[in-house]
Amino acid sequence: MKAEIIAVGSELLLGQITNTNATFIAKNLAEVGIDVYYHTVVGDNPKRLDEAISIAQQRADLIIFSGGLGPTKDDLTKETIAKRLSSSLIMDRKALGNIEAYFKRTKRTMTENNKKQALIIDGATVLENRNGMAPGMAIEKEGKRYILLPGPPHEMEPMFINEAIPYIVGAVGIREVIASKVLKFYGIGEAELEHRVQDIIERQTNPTVAPLASRDAVTLRITAKANSTEAAQNLIAPVEAEIRALVGEFIYGIDEDTLSSKAAELLLQQSLTISAAESLTAGLFMSELSEQAGISASLKGGTVVYNEEEKQRQLHVPKELIEKYGVVSKECAAALAQQVKLKFNSDIGVGLTGVAGPDPHDQKPMGTVWIGIETHKGEVKTFKLELSGTRNTNRRRAANFALYYLIKSISENEGQK
Amino acid sequence: MKAEIIAVGSELLLGQITNTNATFIAKNLAEVGIDVYYHTVVGDNPKRLDEAISIAQQRADLIIFSGGLGPTKDDLTKETIAKRLSSSLIMDRKALGNIEAYFKRTKRTMTENNKKQALIIDGATVLENRNGMAPGMAIEKEGKRYILLPGPPHEMEPMFINEAIPYIVGAVGIREVIASKVLKFYGIGEAELEHRVQDIIERQTNPTVAPLASRDAVTLRITAKANSTEAAQNLIAPVEAEIRALVGEFIYGIDEDTLSSKAAELLLQQSLTISAAESLTAGLFMSELSEQAGISASLKGGTVVYNEEEKQRQLHVPKELIEKYGVVSKECAAALAQQVKLKFNSDIGVGLTGVAGPDPHDQKPMGTVWIGIETHKGEVKTFKLELSGTRNTNRRRAANFALYYLIKSISENEGQK
Repeated sequence: MKAEIIAVGSELLLGQITNTNATFIAKNLAEVGIDVYYHTVVGDNPKRLDEAISIAQQRADLIIFSGGLGPTKDDLTKETIAKRLSSSLIMDRKALGNIEAYFKRTKRTMTENNKKQALIIDGATVLENRNGMAPGMAIEKEGKRYILLPGPPHEMEPMFINEAIPYIVGAVGIREVIASKVLKFYGIGEAELEHRVQDIIERQTNPTVAPLASRDAVTLRITAKANSTEAAQNLIAPVEAEIRALVGEFIYGIDEDTLSSKAAELLLQQSLTISAAESLTAGLFMSELSEQAGISASLKGGTVVYNEEEKQRQLHVPKELIEKYGVVSKECAAALAQQVKLKFNSDIGVGLTGVAGPDPHDQKPMGTVWIGIETHKGEVKTFKLELSGTRNTNRRRAANFALYYLIKSISENEGQK
Repeated sequence: MKAEIIAVGSELLLGQITNTNATFIAKNLAEVGIDVYYHTVVGDNPKRLDEAISIAQQRADLIIFSGGLGPTKDDLTKETIAKRLSSSLIMDRKALGNIEAYFKRTKRTMTENNKKQALIIDGATVLENRNGMAPGMAIEKEGKRYILLPGPPHEMEPMFINEAIPYIVGAVGIREVIASKVLKFYGIGEAELEHRVQDIIERQTNPTVAPLASRDAVTLRITAKANSTEAAQNLIAPVEAEIRALVGEFIYGIDEDTLSSKAAELLLQQSLTISAAESLTAGLFMSELSEQAGISASLKGGTVVYNEEEKQRQLHVPKELIEKYGVVSKECAAALAQQVKLKFNSDIGVGLTGVAGPDPHDQKPMGTVWIGIETHKGEVKTFKLELSGTRNTNRRRAANFALYYLIKSISENEGQK
């Protein structure tokens, strides 16, 4: 089964918004083993949309549309598809009821053009929209399947997962189960990771092992196909073990874990409190940690000390230490961690100091960062980074490395890898 | 002139990455008045790429490719285009020199397959790659123009702006100049803004006025076409004045301004120092401010006080005040601002306290936020927000509102709007 994704909307064509819907749909189709061969973006223009459909009919069995189901006169997706399929639009009573209820609930007056959203292609299966008004549709004609989804991601995404995927899986009769596990890495580059696990990647066909670098992390996705979820997971396990044996030291989590969620999870599990003294990151480390709900049980607070004077005034970093080693030093990072731990009476103290850039500081080049951690066992660890990004990627990486070293410090103390 | 953008790459097709290149290219083509009618994404498959080119040749005069110029055997864009144009690939000496220099500079060994990147389509104009190895190309054949760009955005974007756009403008002989000015708004929703300036939007044809909402801000872009930049700017000025008269109070900046760049600019211009006491944002406000280079002259630092105890211990917020009003209150926000200003001896103090969520706190619902600012004139201002986002959108909006109120507080003191 070959699929094509057609996103409809002039705002996409003009570059005012990015086609993240195609990314989402493609990723989820890949998970159920359906190959996508083309993505197309076309504007709110019925003639060009019709041509795009005509081309897609020649090269795909499943055509998935997003956008153009709304109430305005620009929204023409279902009208154009109905015409091409020699079908007509009919009023769907249930969809109309949902729209009326929506207006009642939000205490707004329903204008006549909103009724247009309840029109569906005759013979289509309605895909319910739980986050908006315009229903989605699925229809089969002459061996081709068409799925119509609304444009706003918060409406499209749950509809695709909860309504469209089951329809597709049912219609196509997919018997195979696909399971995957994502290993999350930090502190190792994509090229280096690929190089180290290259043999495994090349050898595998089921499961497959695919590296992927996002802005701040590197991941390996292990994906297996089998007759049951359990069987697929059994295929994944030995490959995961093999990868962990090679590069396990850089793994900080799996699947949906992020550096901050993993750090928060470990802190809360072990009832450890934390505080931080931040210079170049100016609060970013604490802010990332506090993205996690419930972190107030662990994060007591901390101090942002952005210049030398405040490092002395607020955190009593000795003047002599700064004069001897400079503020961007192993010694200053350790002092920051120790002093903030004392000041906030927390189990763990973290200190961050460095040169974000663009200019060097204290004869240290841009990108030099020192991280200090005093653990709940009183052990003081320091880590040096030599980053090569812009001012703000350096700041973000420094905060992320601090989370990574924090995770490693807590898990090591537990005897975990 | 009709344009089509073809992005080549299986990682796009599989949804592993998003086609932000199309967004960037489309937006910049719109700026020079070129209409894009289709975006296409196709995988690293020469047959399907060739079919996509064949379709594009029938419906576009300018075809812009991104991706597939790299050294690996998957990279087939120029090979496929050369074949379709009945042309051949030749080694470009200058490009080869750049690649060899790149390897020398990074002290790595150049493998044979890297030479492939220096092959260009015979007759093409080379577009220099200043941020990577693979050169871009521009070629004309039988009235159609083809532009080949590398896939990585940090290579593609500067090449497109500096090399491709001048080529296109020169080749097409665009005589018209397009100028635009973006007005940046905060504290007003997109729907409300559109409603208030609807008459202006509907009345205008040159300049046009287009609203656009991004994740955290709302903008109006005023775009004029004329024979010269000056003439275009003269068309923009009266429309801008009209908009400012209606909704000027919500404008915080123009063009590339962000809330943090504008706040930093005003602080540095007026030589004002600042410190902050952050509860729900846990450092995000200070971190956003410190995205701006040079801010160390203004940002002295601050305190993150994540629980009630630390608000008392670190910042001497009176126990009685907290007992009477709670930590999420006008009084607590004001006290945080005043105390942190004292503690850091800064000109301005900012306090942030609130309920990020997901749970309510102190009988205050999720999304309740109080911001306090003590200005350099000793005036204490407080602002209440009732946000309706998730935990982390609430945290981000609270930090952004604090930047917005800071901007307003400093500019008002200057007598600006």
